[in-house]
Amino acid sequence: MVDTSTLARAYLHRLEARDWDTWSEMLHADVVYTTPHSRERWHGRHAFLSFNRSYPGEGHLQEKWILGDAGRAVLWFTWTVGDGRGDAQAFLTFDEAGMITEVTEFWPEPYEAPARPAPATVRY
Amino acid sequence: MVDTSTLARAYLHRLEARDWDTWSEMLHADVVYTTPHSRERWHGRHAFLSFNRSYPGEGHLQEKWILGDAGRAVLWFTWTVGDGRGDAQAFLTFDEAGMITEVTEFWPEPYEAPARPAPATVRY
Repeated sequence: MVDTSTLARAYLHRLEARDWDTWSEMLHADVVYTTPHSRERWHGRHAFLSFNRSYPGEGHLQEKWILGDAGRAVLWFTWTVGDGRGDAQAFLTFDEAGMITEVTEFWPEPYEAPARPAPATVRY
Repeated sequence: MVDTSTLARAYLHRLEARDWDTWSEMLHADVVYTTPHSRERWHGRHAFLSFNRSYPGEGHLQEKWILGDAGRAVLWFTWTVGDGRGDAQAFLTFDEAGMITEVTEFWPEPYEAPARPAPATVRY
């Protein structure tokens, strides 16, 4: 059985290291990368690699949570790019050989808390 | 060992059913609920219950992914409120008795895709 947690951790470390050769080796040739909040999708290893390789700024990624099951893994990580920082979540699907076939990723933008009927006990 | 996936599914179903009694029974009295994108935090079962109970609009939640390990679970679900819809992710921590001690939840807001050096192959 594929150890999806270990693979997901390697995926993040190689991305952080910008080790494009070993990172893209993990991807199925027909991998699909989707960012639902912006309704964008990249088809294929080459398009996904180009997206990451050309992403502007010096980004850094740090693991918070990794959970895996037989064919899937979830990554919750923090990112910093220049003075910006935040959380992101990636949902990875693997084939039986352990190749990544799908990545759906969320990069929630910070927003001002609205008025709430039951307000937060802490704002930070 | 606590079956965190099953508990996470029950958590979502009870929330969807607005079954506040059985939903809040799953929460540790000192549960902490955090929404990092808006930098808000609610301390305690009562505050978390009040937040959900008073949340405006008729919301509906539907499971997409649930993954669990020994003491944690991740929920990826879709929500609809009126004409609005989107994805959200919850990261749940359990104590040894299976009570939920922490929930960190992301509700990514949609945003317009910026210009990209390597544009998406599909916009949807």
